[in-house]
Amino acid sequence: MRRTGKAWLMFGFALLLFVSCAPTDRYVIKEFGSFYIGGRPVTLSGLPTREIVFTKGAPAMKVDPNGDFEVEQMYVQYMLPADQKSKYPLLMWHGGGLTGVTWETKPDGNPGFMQYFLRTGHPIYVSDAVERGRASWARYPEIFTSEPFFRTKKEAWELFRIGPQDSYHTDPAKRTIHPGQRFPISAFDQFCKQSVPRWATNDAATQAAYNALIQKTGPCVVMVHSQGGNFGFQAALAAPDTVKAIIAIEPSGAPKTGPDLEKLKNIPILVIWGDYLDKQALWQRLVPNIDAFAKDLRSKGGRIDWVQLPELGISGNTHMLMMDENSDQIASLIQEWMTKNGLMR
Amino acid sequence: MRRTGKAWLMFGFALLLFVSCAPTDRYVIKEFGSFYIGGRPVTLSGLPTREIVFTKGAPAMKVDPNGDFEVEQMYVQYMLPADQKSKYPLLMWHGGGLTGVTWETKPDGNPGFMQYFLRTGHPIYVSDAVERGRASWARYPEIFTSEPFFRTKKEAWELFRIGPQDSYHTDPAKRTIHPGQRFPISAFDQFCKQSVPRWATNDAATQAAYNALIQKTGPCVVMVHSQGGNFGFQAALAAPDTVKAIIAIEPSGAPKTGPDLEKLKNIPILVIWGDYLDKQALWQRLVPNIDAFAKDLRSKGGRIDWVQLPELGISGNTHMLMMDENSDQIASLIQEWMTKNGLMR
Repeated sequence: MRRTGKAWLMFGFALLLFVSCAPTDRYVIKEFGSFYIGGRPVTLSGLPTREIVFTKGAPAMKVDPNGDFEVEQMYVQYMLPADQKSKYPLLMWHGGGLTGVTWETKPDGNPGFMQYFLRTGHPIYVSDAVERGRASWARYPEIFTSEPFFRTKKEAWELFRIGPQDSYHTDPAKRTIHPGQRFPISAFDQFCKQSVPRWATNDAATQAAYNALIQKTGPCVVMVHSQGGNFGFQAALAAPDTVKAIIAIEPSGAPKTGPDLEKLKNIPILVIWGDYLDKQALWQRLVPNIDAFAKDLRSKGGRIDWVQLPELGISGNTHMLMMDENSDQIASLIQEWMTKNGLMR
Repeated sequence: MRRTGKAWLMFGFALLLFVSCAPTDRYVIKEFGSFYIGGRPVTLSGLPTREIVFTKGAPAMKVDPNGDFEVEQMYVQYMLPADQKSKYPLLMWHGGGLTGVTWETKPDGNPGFMQYFLRTGHPIYVSDAVERGRASWARYPEIFTSEPFFRTKKEAWELFRIGPQDSYHTDPAKRTIHPGQRFPISAFDQFCKQSVPRWATNDAATQAAYNALIQKTGPCVVMVHSQGGNFGFQAALAAPDTVKAIIAIEPSGAPKTGPDLEKLKNIPILVIWGDYLDKQALWQRLVPNIDAFAKDLRSKGGRIDWVQLPELGISGNTHMLMMDENSDQIASLIQEWMTKNGLMR
């Protein structure tokens, strides 16, 4: 009897060690880091030089803008869970005027989609597209051929369907939101700090970098948002056997209808829309393009699921639904879809 | 006997569970994410509007550059180990023309300082300074008052002491390195993809954001590189009771000597230098400024350790020593210094 008691004591002790280190509310990461992909070397010449003091306390330096540069690369940060539960890595591609921060902590400080899908066992690859964030940008008009654009808070307020047209006000107290809107409104100005300048002339370089990323990761699932939508669909057209699924969150564009879409018919595609689409002029013009793409793909035998959250009784979601207060609910819908489509181990 | 056998079996089984989940070669993260700090709202007016197609397949949009923006914020990404072994979080501040990527994966794909110091139990806060990377940048000359500068590969090659003056060549095969140089030379062009534009007129906003970060984290250790050096020392002057130590890796600037430095005398400071300082004109002009700062601080009873790696028999390190092939060796020296100075639990 005493031996058995000792046995249970030892078992309990070792079990305690196990429980104490089990990744319950933790992330157990096998590897994390980043890399750059895509881009090209360029050489500038014939530009005037100048003198400048860069660092306080440092002497003036002659700055010659002429020379060799690396441009049009993309930045990719990855986090690989020790306990991978998905068959493929999850590539997360942000929308226009934004960076990979879209998928990180939400502007109200709560965990975002990156944390959610890492927890559910997906190797995560979050990128900053060409010209955005850590991907850097290049001198214009010498390398980038046009001027950048900076999104105003008013444009974000309206296009992201936080509130009705012309309901934005500089004073947060005087802003009107859509009824039942679920974006963390008190963090809207904080969210605007995530905005980065964009160019309208770098799509080819951006697409090339995304295509190169898919070649590097191999078979993968691509989650795209807004402007990332068309890049994701085009990447699948370029590598239909490597892209195993596309989760398109409020895509702003899609490939033209036609025979080419045959290539996508075996790729499960989920398209998700939030609320208030009928309340915003640009989205009323954009959604029909995506709808035509979906119908044409379906007519070719494509497997495309079209989800409008309000039709599921989930109302109040904005264009930035990964930041809305019910983002975990939406993430779980996506996770269920991935499980249903055989994307998990 | 059979009972004891069963007991050991059960013990072994439970122990196996423990070992199988122990974070041996893994990172066990309590929390990770990011936030923005610092910055201010601005309003632009009187600028001309234009029409542009942003996303392929999307209709043209009228772009009005006038309106409200958030500017001059800083981006901070944090990773908090489940098993914290340090007393304070470690804030990692990059140098000029670079971002927080400095501390991440090295350009040759090997783990960097971020991984090293997370493994040794430090809560890590890696920032992209104002105007850099995910912190974004603002329209100039309307908001940022000057033009940005783009570092050429030749300038990086020389200033970062990869090779002698004028030894850079567009063709990698024709580049000459310093003898015994330890930078992963085959990854130099990859490293150049980390370069981001910089301004010479945002120091006040950058300092304000760094100071705000220290107020947010509370008592902390600040690790600075190059241009980050002066920002780190100034942040300590602004909050001498909150900055518990400064690790200055090849700082390019320091506060002026004088009575003000009294405030820093109780803060342990480690200054680390690589090799080839005598081979590069700018560093021959910069190092004496830091040396004067160190001597003045020491004369006031300051605790400043001055380490020139070659004097320890560690030769071949460049300005980017956190990317050199012996970066772990240097990180371990820093870790030993932190332990010696009572910064670990």
